[in-house]
Amino acid sequence: MNNKEVIDRHKPVVLIIGGGFAGINAARALKHSNVEIILVDRRNHHLFQPLLYQVATAVISPAEIAAPLRQLEERQNNLSVVLAEITGIDLQARAVEAQVEGGGRRSHSFDYLIVATGAQSTYFGHDEFAEFAPSLKTLTDAEAMRAKILRAYEVAASTEDPSERSRQMTFAVVGGGPTGVELAASLATMARETLRGNFRSIDPSQSKIVLIEAGKRILPQFHESLAVKAQEHLERLGVQVLTNASVEHIDEQGVVIGGNRVECATVLWGAGVTASPILKMLGAETDRGGRVIVDPNLRVPGNRNVFVVGDAASIVQDGRPLPGVAQVAIQSGSFAGRVIASELEGRQMPKAFSYFNKGNLAVIGKNYALLERNNVRMSGFFAWIIWALIHIAFLPQLQNRLRVEVQWLYTYATGKRGSRLIPERPEHRHA
Amino acid sequence: MNNKEVIDRHKPVVLIIGGGFAGINAARALKHSNVEIILVDRRNHHLFQPLLYQVATAVISPAEIAAPLRQLEERQNNLSVVLAEITGIDLQARAVEAQVEGGGRRSHSFDYLIVATGAQSTYFGHDEFAEFAPSLKTLTDAEAMRAKILRAYEVAASTEDPSERSRQMTFAVVGGGPTGVELAASLATMARETLRGNFRSIDPSQSKIVLIEAGKRILPQFHESLAVKAQEHLERLGVQVLTNASVEHIDEQGVVIGGNRVECATVLWGAGVTASPILKMLGAETDRGGRVIVDPNLRVPGNRNVFVVGDAASIVQDGRPLPGVAQVAIQSGSFAGRVIASELEGRQMPKAFSYFNKGNLAVIGKNYALLERNNVRMSGFFAWIIWALIHIAFLPQLQNRLRVEVQWLYTYATGKRGSRLIPERPEHRHA
Repeated sequence: MNNKEVIDRHKPVVLIIGGGFAGINAARALKHSNVEIILVDRRNHHLFQPLLYQVATAVISPAEIAAPLRQLEERQNNLSVVLAEITGIDLQARAVEAQVEGGGRRSHSFDYLIVATGAQSTYFGHDEFAEFAPSLKTLTDAEAMRAKILRAYEVAASTEDPSERSRQMTFAVVGGGPTGVELAASLATMARETLRGNFRSIDPSQSKIVLIEAGKRILPQFHESLAVKAQEHLERLGVQVLTNASVEHIDEQGVVIGGNRVECATVLWGAGVTASPILKMLGAETDRGGRVIVDPNLRVPGNRNVFVVGDAASIVQDGRPLPGVAQVAIQSGSFAGRVIASELEGRQMPKAFSYFNKGNLAVIGKNYALLERNNVRMSGFFAWIIWALIHIAFLPQLQNRLRVEVQWLYTYATGKRGSRLIPERPEHRHA
Repeated sequence: MNNKEVIDRHKPVVLIIGGGFAGINAARALKHSNVEIILVDRRNHHLFQPLLYQVATAVISPAEIAAPLRQLEERQNNLSVVLAEITGIDLQARAVEAQVEGGGRRSHSFDYLIVATGAQSTYFGHDEFAEFAPSLKTLTDAEAMRAKILRAYEVAASTEDPSERSRQMTFAVVGGGPTGVELAASLATMARETLRGNFRSIDPSQSKIVLIEAGKRILPQFHESLAVKAQEHLERLGVQVLTNASVEHIDEQGVVIGGNRVECATVLWGAGVTASPILKMLGAETDRGGRVIVDPNLRVPGNRNVFVVGDAASIVQDGRPLPGVAQVAIQSGSFAGRVIASELEGRQMPKAFSYFNKGNLAVIGKNYALLERNNVRMSGFFAWIIWALIHIAFLPQLQNRLRVEVQWLYTYATGKRGSRLIPERPEHRHA
C-alpha cells in the first residue's frame, strides 16, 4: 500500500532526539549511509529560533520560521519522523521509550543515539517569575508574548486612569544578551513606528521600554566597543538600558530591581537557558547549565554509541564551553553524523570536533546590526544588510525565503507589521 | 500627549458592534461624515472568512487572512476601535455595556447603533457534537481543525493496528454547502498531493474522505447542473459524497448515518450557522436562524436609530431571506452607513435596501471552481482563475495580497503547503 520502502530492520538504526539545527544536520550527514534514521520530536516542525523574537513582536508570522519535519522524509529515503515525547532512555538495552502522539507508548531500539534536545528557558531558581514574565523558546511562547504585548496597548487605550495607562505602556525586558537586545529594540520600533496612529486615545510612541541586565554590560559575547555602540543605538531608539541591575522580584504589577519597583504590566524574559531535562535520563555528567559534558568526538564518556550535540552538549574548546548558538548546533550535529558514517563504513574517523566560528551577529531594530568575526567588527546599516542576507539564506525552505523577503520588504517600506493578531481566548465562543 | 484628536463628545456617536465585512463597510460609508464612530469587537482583527478553510487545511497561515482592526483608526480619523465584549444593550438609554479587554466594564452611549455581529456555527440542538466535530468560524477554529487533521496522520503513522490506522485516515465532513465542499476537496488535495511522500509507514493518498449532506443534493445555492458537476469533480478527487444522509450521532469513534457507523477519527462540521446570541439583547423579532427581522432600511422595527446588518439580519428580498454571504454583508453594512449619513446631513434618504447579486462562487480543490451569475454558469479551471483573482483583489491589505499570491503560486507549483504546524500543547514545557 505504500510508495516507499518500509523501515528496514536489518540496517543499523540511528535514533536522533530533537529536530532542531543539531538534529536535522546530524540526519543530513547520514543521508547517503546505509542506516535507518529515526528522528523523534514532540513538535511537528523545525523552528528557526533566531527569528522567534520577530514573531513575538508581530513582524512575521509563525509559519514563516517553521518547516514541517515531515518534509525530511521526502528528501531523505533513510529517515522516518516520529512525533512523540521521550519518556525514558535505557543505554544498556539501547532503547528509548516514547509517548506517541495520540496515546500509547512505544519502544525504539537503536544502534546509535544522537541527543539533540536543545535548551529551554530558565528563571534561575525563580520559577514563580514564569507566570508574569514569559520567555521565548517555542512558537507557542512567541505567540503568547505577542498577545501579551498587544493586549497591554488595548488595556492602555481603554483605561482612563493615567497611572494604569502608563503601567500598561511600560515594558521590561530581562537579559542583555542577543535575545533581550533584539526584543527590546523590536518593541521600541513597534511602539514608535508600527503602532503610531493606531490608537486615538493613547500615543504608543510614549511607551517606556527598559532593558535590564545583571552584568556590567550588555552583549558580553561581543567586543566591548560593539556593546557600547549597541547601547547607544538602543538609547537612540528610546530603550532605557540598566546594567548591574539584578531582578529581585517580578509580579503582576511590575519588577523590583535593587529595591526599586518599576511599575509595568509586561515583563519579558530573555535572560537564561538551561539544558532539556531529558538529559537527566542519560545519567551522564553535566555542567552547571545541565549540559552533558562530551568527549572530543561529542560522545558521552563511556558510551561509544551515544552522542550529545548542540545546546544540549557542553563542548569545551580552548578551555571554554562553546556558546549555545545555531552555528555550534549545526556543526556539532553534522560532526556526530559523520563520525557514525565513518565508523560504519570503516573509513578513517574524523579528527576531534573543532568549532569554526563564522562570527557573531545581533540585530538592533529595523536597520542596525552588530557583526564580529575575528578582528573584524562592524555596526550599523551595512552589518544589518549582511545579517538579513544570512538569515534569508538560512531559512530552511524556499517558500519561507520568498515570504520572509516579501514581509521584510513590506515592513521596511511601510513600517507596518503584518502579524498583529491576538488569538481568541478559548472561553470566548460567541459574536 | 497625543498626535490625534481626542474623541469629540459633541458629535453624534455611531456605535458599530462587529468588525466583519458588514461592520467595516458601515464604518467606511461614514468616513466623511461629522460623526464619532466607535467600532467594538472582541477580536483585534478583521477576518477574511471565505478563506478560513485554507487555514484549516494548511494551505495558508492565519495572518494571511486577517488584518488588525486598529489599522482602521489610522485610515479613518472619526473612528475608534474598542476591544471589548458586549455584555448588555439598553435601547431606551441608548447605551451598550462592554467588558473591556484587561478587565473592567465600560458603558458607551450612542446616537446610532449598527449591529453587525455575524453568525456562528450551530449543531442544530446537538451541542454535544461540538466536542468531536469542530466547526469553522474563527481563526482559532481553523487552527484547531488543522491540528486535528495533522495529528490524525501522525497517529495513523505511529499505530500498527490496521483498523485504527484506517480509522485515523478517514475524514468525515458534515454539510454539503460551500464550506463543506471546499473543506472536503481541500482535504482530498492535501491527502493525495501535499502529504504524499511525507510518511514512510502510511500512504496518505489512501485516505478516505466522506462528505455528508442531509438534503437531496450538495450546493443548494447553485443551479442543479453545477451541483452535478461539482459532485462529479469531488468524486474524481476521491471524495465520497453521501446525500440524503442525516447525521444521527457523533462521538470519538466516528459518525452514525442512517443507523450505519462510519469509523473515523476526524469529523469536521460545516453544516449550519445561527446568529450571534448578542442579538437577543435587542429584544427584537428574529427568524428561525435567530437573525433579526429588519425593515427595508435595515432598521429594527420601532427603533429608527438601530440597524442590523450582514449575517445578523434577516433581510427579505423577492420573498426570500438573503443568504449569509460576504456580498450581502458588505452591501448591507455600507447601506446602513449611508442611511445614517443622509439623515444627519439632511440629504434625501436612499431608497430601500436592494441587494445586487454579483454571483455565486465556490472552489473545489486546486484548480476547479463553480461560478454562477444570472444565467451564466461556468465550472472548471477558468472559473477557478476568476475565483482566485476575485479573492486576491478582495483581501483587505496589500501585504496580504502579495503574500497570498506568493503562497498560492508556490502551492500550485510544488503541491506543498506551507502552514503545516501543529501547535504545541500547553502542558508540554520541556525538550
